[in-house]
Amino acid sequence: MFTDCSSSTTSRLIHLYNRNGVFLPRPSVSQFSLRTTASTWRCTLSIRSSSSPSAIVIDGKAEAKKIRDDIKIEVSRMKESIGVVPAEDSSEEEVLKYVSGFNDDPSVHGVLVQLPLPSHMDEQNILNAVSIEKDVDGFHPLNIGRLAMRGREPLFVPCTPKGCIELLHRYNIEFKGKRAVVIGRSNIVGMPAALLLQKEDATVSIIHSRTMNPEELTRQADILISAVGKPNMVRGSWIKPGAVLIDVGIKPVEDPSAAGGERLVGDICYVEASKIASAITPVPGGVGPMTIAMLISNTLTSAKRIHNFQ
Amino acid sequence: MFTDCSSSTTSRLIHLYNRNGVFLPRPSVSQFSLRTTASTWRCTLSIRSSSSPSAIVIDGKAEAKKIRDDIKIEVSRMKESIGVVPAEDSSEEEVLKYVSGFNDDPSVHGVLVQLPLPSHMDEQNILNAVSIEKDVDGFHPLNIGRLAMRGREPLFVPCTPKGCIELLHRYNIEFKGKRAVVIGRSNIVGMPAALLLQKEDATVSIIHSRTMNPEELTRQADILISAVGKPNMVRGSWIKPGAVLIDVGIKPVEDPSAAGGERLVGDICYVEASKIASAITPVPGGVGPMTIAMLISNTLTSAKRIHNFQ
Repeated sequence: MFTDCSSSTTSRLIHLYNRNGVFLPRPSVSQFSLRTTASTWRCTLSIRSSSSPSAIVIDGKAEAKKIRDDIKIEVSRMKESIGVVPAEDSSEEEVLKYVSGFNDDPSVHGVLVQLPLPSHMDEQNILNAVSIEKDVDGFHPLNIGRLAMRGREPLFVPCTPKGCIELLHRYNIEFKGKRAVVIGRSNIVGMPAALLLQKEDATVSIIHSRTMNPEELTRQADILISAVGKPNMVRGSWIKPGAVLIDVGIKPVEDPSAAGGERLVGDICYVEASKIASAITPVPGGVGPMTIAMLISNTLTSAKRIHNFQ
Repeated sequence: MFTDCSSSTTSRLIHLYNRNGVFLPRPSVSQFSLRTTASTWRCTLSIRSSSSPSAIVIDGKAEAKKIRDDIKIEVSRMKESIGVVPAEDSSEEEVLKYVSGFNDDPSVHGVLVQLPLPSHMDEQNILNAVSIEKDVDGFHPLNIGRLAMRGREPLFVPCTPKGCIELLHRYNIEFKGKRAVVIGRSNIVGMPAALLLQKEDATVSIIHSRTMNPEELTRQADILISAVGKPNMVRGSWIKPGAVLIDVGIKPVEDPSAAGGERLVGDICYVEASKIASAITPVPGGVGPMTIAMLISNTLTSAKRIHNFQ
């Protein structure tokens, strides 16, 4: 069915379907359910309200560009100094040989295969060539363990949660003693994001699919990171006034007025939230670009470590 | 100074000292501070109130005995079947040789040195002989990482938090959808306890030394695990009625009436808490015996895995 589900000046239509009496957006590839009421799903799907929002918009695109520019300078400096830079125009064979060399070299602490690879390389071939002990995407249990432990540091931090924390730092958000809530406990975002927030001395709570009344906890959050992939799940009423909101969710929803008939929407109902929060990431243009920037940054860190370049 | 700090029928005296205007019990080896008010520390230090408490007393000593008895049966079964049992009456040289054999054997996945060792063995010699990749006390980052990740399982779970969860299971405490709060984020108790509670589908919050107003969070906890080591820090007013309380803290406090002039006290003010909670572990006799039982259990698991014994 189609229903008008807004009170906004620029409301849109969204295609909903009825499951167990609850109207939901169309199911997506990764299903995730929080025990919420039907009203949770009725959010204004406008991109921006015409009334000016009170929250600072955390511009991941701009920050990611600054990081990429810094990385370019560093790479040029490496090239001039030691004549070796992270491979970009290499052949697949050359990259495989390089990875194999890293695997056999005991002084190498980690290998990061930056995705996406250039189109002339077979991703699986190269990923499979990396020794598991040196798979420093940050997802290896050894890195996650070091992330969890006090007094230990991982070789690499998973890129998306690292990007979230980096954004917060760049906007001078205070962590120490703050209440932080993470929605989602995935290995690649929610769980490492919670560990990173705790490393920053925030008091962290983790909400997941089994959590009853998640809004009771989110309303206590000074910092809220949502990484679920359910469009507009987090309503204005879930948010503590003045909170800082990081929206990792990104899902296409039907929108007849958009090019291609759909557009990307985050976990957080932007129109409602931006009136209550002190700062918020947009979707797209928030966390997404930061993930890419952190991937490049991790690759540079790896290269500098390999070549003992300060 | 000495002060009477109770409203109980069987109150005791406790030796306090003044630091920055806050009266605290004598400092202990591992200092840990929560930002609380002075009133936090004024707890009745009676072992039991004469009025019958409402909470079920979770008897770790009895449960640990049951586990040890089960292990005895398993060890006998192993001895009869394969003639190999976890070394107990071996010499130090025999144990070192055995450990070295595990280190060199690629089919061996882990080695656990069960502490305390028999008195005729040098603990450091034997611990140092275990390859770090196979140090399966459960504290290795690889095991912690697997504990943190969904879809992964550690080879060994650290004994004290494992004991806490085992106790809760044995008392049929429901985890799913419950609010759990862990006080303390140490590598050996607080952090792995939080990860285990999350694996059980509880919604977990972690309180630590930087947390402001910890009692606001503890009052929401259906399950509360405290692992700080500050006598009577958790007052009755911190506890949600009907909560289940696991007290990992254990510290000696001065008590002129006790043998030796001191006795062991937990993080949770037992007299106050036992009137509000639905279940509570005593100190001593709660988590302590379970830690030992889990150490023995882990050793058996390791031995069975080594010998492919089902």
